[in-house]
Amino acid sequence: MKKFSLRARVLTVAVAAAALGAGTLGAVSANASAPAAALPAGAKADAANRNLHQTTHLTVAAATEAAQAVLEAAQDENQRVTVAVVDRNGNTVVVLRGDGAGPQSYESAERKAFTAVSWNAPTSELVERLPQAPNLKDIPGTLFLGGGAPVRANGAPIAGIGVAGAPSGDLDEKFARAGVAALAR
Amino acid sequence: MKKFSLRARVLTVAVAAAALGAGTLGAVSANASAPAAALPAGAKADAANRNLHQTTHLTVAAATEAAQAVLEAAQDENQRVTVAVVDRNGNTVVVLRGDGAGPQSYESAERKAFTAVSWNAPTSELVERLPQAPNLKDIPGTLFLGGGAPVRANGAPIAGIGVAGAPSGDLDEKFARAGVAALAR
Amino acid sequence: MKKFSLRARVLTVAVAAAALGAGTLGAVSANASAPAAALPAGAKADAANRNLHQTTHLTVAAATEAAQAVLEAAQDENQRVTVAVVDRNGNTVVVLRGDGAGPQSYESAERKAFTAVSWNAPTSELVERLPQAPNLKDIPGTLFLGGGAPVRANGAPIAGIGVAGAPSGDLDEKFARAGVAALAR
Amino acid sequence: MKKFSLRARVLTVAVAAAALGAGTLGAVSANASAPAAALPAGAKADAANRNLHQTTHLTVAAATEAAQAVLEAAQDENQRVTVAVVDRNGNTVVVLRGDGAGPQSYESAERKAFTAVSWNAPTSELVERLPQAPNLKDIPGTLFLGGGAPVRANGAPIAGIGVAGAPSGDLDEKFARAGVAALAR
Amino acid sequence: MKKFSLRARVLTVAVAAAALGAGTLGAVSANASAPAAALPAGAKADAANRNLHQTTHLTVAAATEAAQAVLEAAQDENQRVTVAVVDRNGNTVVVLRGDGAGPQSYESAERKAFTAVSWNAPTSELVERLPQAPNLKDIPGTLFLGGGAPVRANGAPIAGIGVAGAPSGDLDEKFARAGVAALAR
Amino acid sequence: MKKFSLRARVLTVAVAAAALGAGTLGAVSANASAPAAALPAGAKADAANRNLHQTTHLTVAAATEAAQAVLEAAQDENQRVTVAVVDRNGNTVVVLRGDGAGPQSYESAERKAFTAVSWNAPTSELVERLPQAPNLKDIPGTLFLGGGAPVRANGAPIAGIGVAGAPSGDLDEKFARAGVAALAR
Amino acid sequence: MKKFSLRARVLTVAVAAAALGAGTLGAVSANASAPAAALPAGAKADAANRNLHQTTHLTVAAATEAAQAVLEAAQDENQRVTVAVVDRNGNTVVVLRGDGAGPQSYESAERKAFTAVSWNAPTSELVERLPQAPNLKDIPGTLFLGGGAPVRANGAPIAGIGVAGAPSGDLDEKFARAGVAALAR
Amino acid sequence: MKKFSLRARVLTVAVAAAALGAGTLGAVSANASAPAAALPAGAKADAANRNLHQTTHLTVAAATEAAQAVLEAAQDENQRVTVAVVDRNGNTVVVLRGDGAGPQSYESAERKAFTAVSWNAPTSELVERLPQAPNLKDIPGTLFLGGGAPVRANGAPIAGIGVAGAPSGDLDEKFARAGVAALAR
Repeated sequence: MKKFSLRARVLTVAVAAAALGAGTLGAVSANASAPAAALPAGAKADAANRNLHQTTHLTVAAATEAAQAVLEAAQDENQRVTVAVVDRNGNTVVVLRGDGAGPQSYESAERKAFTAVSWNAPTSELVERLPQAPNLKDIPGTLFLGGGAPVRANGAPIAGIGVAGAPSGDLDEKFARAGVAALAR
Repeated sequence: MKKFSLRARVLTVAVAAAALGAGTLGAVSANASAPAAALPAGAKADAANRNLHQTTHLTVAAATEAAQAVLEAAQDENQRVTVAVVDRNGNTVVVLRGDGAGPQSYESAERKAFTAVSWNAPTSELVERLPQAPNLKDIPGTLFLGGGAPVRANGAPIAGIGVAGAPSGDLDEKFARAGVAALAR
Repeated sequence: MKKFSLRARVLTVAVAAAALGAGTLGAVSANASAPAAALPAGAKADAANRNLHQTTHLTVAAATEAAQAVLEAAQDENQRVTVAVVDRNGNTVVVLRGDGAGPQSYESAERKAFTAVSWNAPTSELVERLPQAPNLKDIPGTLFLGGGAPVRANGAPIAGIGVAGAPSGDLDEKFARAGVAALAR
Repeated sequence: MKKFSLRARVLTVAVAAAALGAGTLGAVSANASAPAAALPAGAKADAANRNLHQTTHLTVAAATEAAQAVLEAAQDENQRVTVAVVDRNGNTVVVLRGDGAGPQSYESAERKAFTAVSWNAPTSELVERLPQAPNLKDIPGTLFLGGGAPVRANGAPIAGIGVAGAPSGDLDEKFARAGVAALAR
Repeated sequence: MKKFSLRARVLTVAVAAAALGAGTLGAVSANASAPAAALPAGAKADAANRNLHQTTHLTVAAATEAAQAVLEAAQDENQRVTVAVVDRNGNTVVVLRGDGAGPQSYESAERKAFTAVSWNAPTSELVERLPQAPNLKDIPGTLFLGGGAPVRANGAPIAGIGVAGAPSGDLDEKFARAGVAALAR
Repeated sequence: MKKFSLRARVLTVAVAAAALGAGTLGAVSANASAPAAALPAGAKADAANRNLHQTTHLTVAAATEAAQAVLEAAQDENQRVTVAVVDRNGNTVVVLRGDGAGPQSYESAERKAFTAVSWNAPTSELVERLPQAPNLKDIPGTLFLGGGAPVRANGAPIAGIGVAGAPSGDLDEKFARAGVAALAR
Repeated sequence: MKKFSLRARVLTVAVAAAALGAGTLGAVSANASAPAAALPAGAKADAANRNLHQTTHLTVAAATEAAQAVLEAAQDENQRVTVAVVDRNGNTVVVLRGDGAGPQSYESAERKAFTAVSWNAPTSELVERLPQAPNLKDIPGTLFLGGGAPVRANGAPIAGIGVAGAPSGDLDEKFARAGVAALAR
Repeated sequence: MKKFSLRARVLTVAVAAAALGAGTLGAVSANASAPAAALPAGAKADAANRNLHQTTHLTVAAATEAAQAVLEAAQDENQRVTVAVVDRNGNTVVVLRGDGAGPQSYESAERKAFTAVSWNAPTSELVERLPQAPNLKDIPGTLFLGGGAPVRANGAPIAGIGVAGAPSGDLDEKFARAGVAALAR
């Protein structure tokens, strides 16, 4: 095995990921695959951190603000929802169970957020891919229903926002997008 | 974020929910969405409870009586079923496993009750919505089979009754409706 | 069985609970048992709601504000924690995973909150009861470590705030109390 | 292996168990081991059922009545509890979540009932055995806290009643015994 | 509620169930519904056991023999399978993991047995019902694949035998039927 | 029951399995059923081990090398994946979560590996069998998506390699095959 | 990393394990640590299987016979128990739930078997080690109560037999030893 | 709430965390609390990333190398262990199940790694804290047994290495430290 070359390549990817941290926070785009980020010119690393890489996360303050924006958007339309924000590793960062949201909304919101960040796409888009690969929806932790939206930095997914409880997935996803938009303000 | 306005709005909703408590207990209706309740005229609140809202529940005595009515209805048709009553938050309040009911009936009854209260609709109706949103049935805790019926106060769901074990979901749901009806006596 | 009297008694309790809604939000007190609330004079109910009772909850706006106050208090002491708010039924309403909080903090926070609201006492107090009943800590969902505090309305528990991640349970509980205090402002 | 003799012996035990069905329903006694029932004189069986044996269960009607008696006893002392009845195989037959009972009470009640029927002893007695075998309490599904009482027919355990939510296990168990007593009326 | 009549009816059903114990052990039939057993003439009960009913089970010796017959039948066709026997309450009584059986076979066998006893029908038959009620297969604990067969006494299901690991469900079910047949010898 | 003959037959199968250990490690083939291995001529066993049989496993060193080959192949195409290797009993032996692989990839990789070794076939092939037996995919622990490949010794499955995280199952499976190929070097 | 040497060493261990297959089946001994087996002289391997090693298992026929011997021993003393046999990887191979065994016995038996094979010692011995390492008993899947016994081939653990349901762990373990002894006949 | 100041403070912490990425990888030290990192002079951030922070991780290549070093160290002492590496968020990155390691070792290794990274201390040290806070060990996912070691960058925990399967926790931890040491080479 070409062990050395593997390490060298991993290193440059790691540096690329760290560089993402300074990037801008994008809106929901149509690109749903998860290509490796383009390598920035001039990436370099010293011996000390060849074993390390960085990942980018929303601060809890930002995630909370996004979640509050979701609840506010839902309330503006008289809807009762729960909102969850998960990070790129699928760990839940924030959950707010809206007043009067149904009991099914809690885990639904987490799963939609998980699904959106896993494939870097709104869950409404992912539903449309199911005819080609129907068993995607059997992957544990996922939920293929509208209402999930990825949060991106330089195109890479760093978080997912999931919303559940409104009468339709389209409505849930409208509120999720309001949460993403709040981060760009 | 317009934090103050959020709170003010939440407050009036809370008062509305409290007002529901004095309402009548409705039969199974066709309305399955979960709109926010209309705000009652003259809702008001003092500073002390701006952080609080009320939710309405069946008493355990009422839930037990409904469950017993279900078993009696099933017995009248020589059927062996389990019945569960869950509250609006999805927590099980009462379960009665009928004599001779199959082992699959226990969790089925709980899930049908959960499903009915989540969407404020009989589960037989919810089954008919699946062609439009087939993955709804992947939401954890749900079961899209006839046999679940919501209990309402002023149109809002406050509990779900789920029945399982009869040869068909239609029969299960007939017994569930008998449980709802017992609450209106 | 004296079924009628059971129902009559349940009814008055239900009304008492509803009356709590207008009450004040207390600080952490030493009273840890869960006696039935004193019945208010003049409680009455019509036939329509004899099957219903009310429970009191924090609004999500209030719960979020309390949770944010916890994170702020922790940050003032350079600590990284997760905070959870659960309602009287043990359902999680809000979770905020603080930046840099350890992975053990998420479920710990939820369990401390659950424990505090279950016994209507700070978890540091509950730890002191264990010598008398050591197996209390085997009850599913609980965690007997300092860091949980109940939220009360008229003395009855309506929510629990749980904090985890600081080097000691005492410190966690100090932050939890800051969350309770924020509700009384 | 003496296969034939095994079967013959199993057969007589089976008949003995069936005979228990006609027995009386005992109160809580001090006998906590689980010896095989004495074989009744004249037990016999034909070839057809040598593969079968019978087990004795409470009817759901009886289990519900016992559970209601528990709630009534608790209410008489102003306590809020949940009660569960499980059969000899550990399957839950009835659960009634009392109004205002804490969220920890649901699973606690089930586990106390499970524990009492498993060892055919009140859980308060079982707690006293722990100094000799402390890891008994690590057996999945058990809870070694006062509040569980076995229901017996001819000395053999046929069900367990578990109660949780009162300030002490002794109080919980007092109510559980009230449930057992209701079956003997 | 007509409580007395409920109890009276439950009582006669209980006696009927007890009577089943003397019955013959049937082969796999086409009848898959679960009607209450016809009441035997002359059923009677004294006051002492009005709270009790009996259920019929395979002895462990019989269940083991059936499971061994399954493995033998599979071996005769050079197939490697796991076999499970569950009782009418869904509790597993015997599992034998055949040498070389795949890892998926263990839980599959249990679920097929559970499914067969729940609906009192071979699982191959149950698969054919799915076009009419596709979500039956979402009931927890079930598996709608050939390989499960009910064991009956007087037409009522008292156990299920599930087999998994052969290349087709038909083959699995052939072995399961060999297990049922062994009980009739 | 012909117990002796059962044992005798089991014995020869056991010897056959042990003999496999000296075999060669095959590439991914089209043969997906799991027939019992042909019995080698001259198989014999002494009395001492008639109760024993052997199973063949990858060493952890080999499994790790295969997993590293998978990550390297993925990196060559700029893809971020997780790889899992499970043994014939379904136990996970190695997991490597690739840098930047999505959170859904961990359990997906394990399940694909489990599925491939269970049926001794690439998961892409197994997907094609679903039209004939759609509920196969309900078996716990499985995932019917491309990306799993069996590892064989003399045609029998001894391990499964599962890969997840690339934009398509075909790509995942290409990497899985690279892992299998590394074992044949 | 000295990768080559790692592999070479693994190889010899693998061969040693395969050699164990021809060994004798020992009784319960006092040796509870799990040292690597002494390497047999003359171990050799060709290039083809350097990636493979063998593990030794009880046949299902042997495991069933051992389990039946356990039930027989228990019946001789009028005790009702469940017995489980697990292999060296912790996978359950056989479970027999004895007639009348308590509901806690099923998972207890599996865990005792798991514990005995994990540390290659009777669980009664393992209990005595807890004063030195009390948290050993927090390892998932274990149960530190008498009743588990390892099955060995040439001193290495190849299976565990666990028994539960008798009034004491000593009695359970006596029956487990009867199961081990049956394998040596 | 002083929202602005909260955010400002979060920001500087985030930058501090990012700065850690360039740090050196420390050995196991005695410092077990989890203080917020000292803020570096001159931390600054633009508006674009005020919502973002970075976390530092081992690359999978580094984690695999550490895990291989653990297995090699164990093999040098003829011990059979499983090793797991988890990241700061508790997610498992690498698991290698050593040849012949007991079945209890897999989850034990993961939990020891989780525990070490959660408290930034070797688990042998954490065991010594239990007399002061015995219920720490009830936190889900933890295991308070020697064998876990944190991996640090600039003093902050970025990963945990857990080892299980040797006869003592001290030995397990010696191997874990060998894994940490391999990262500093």
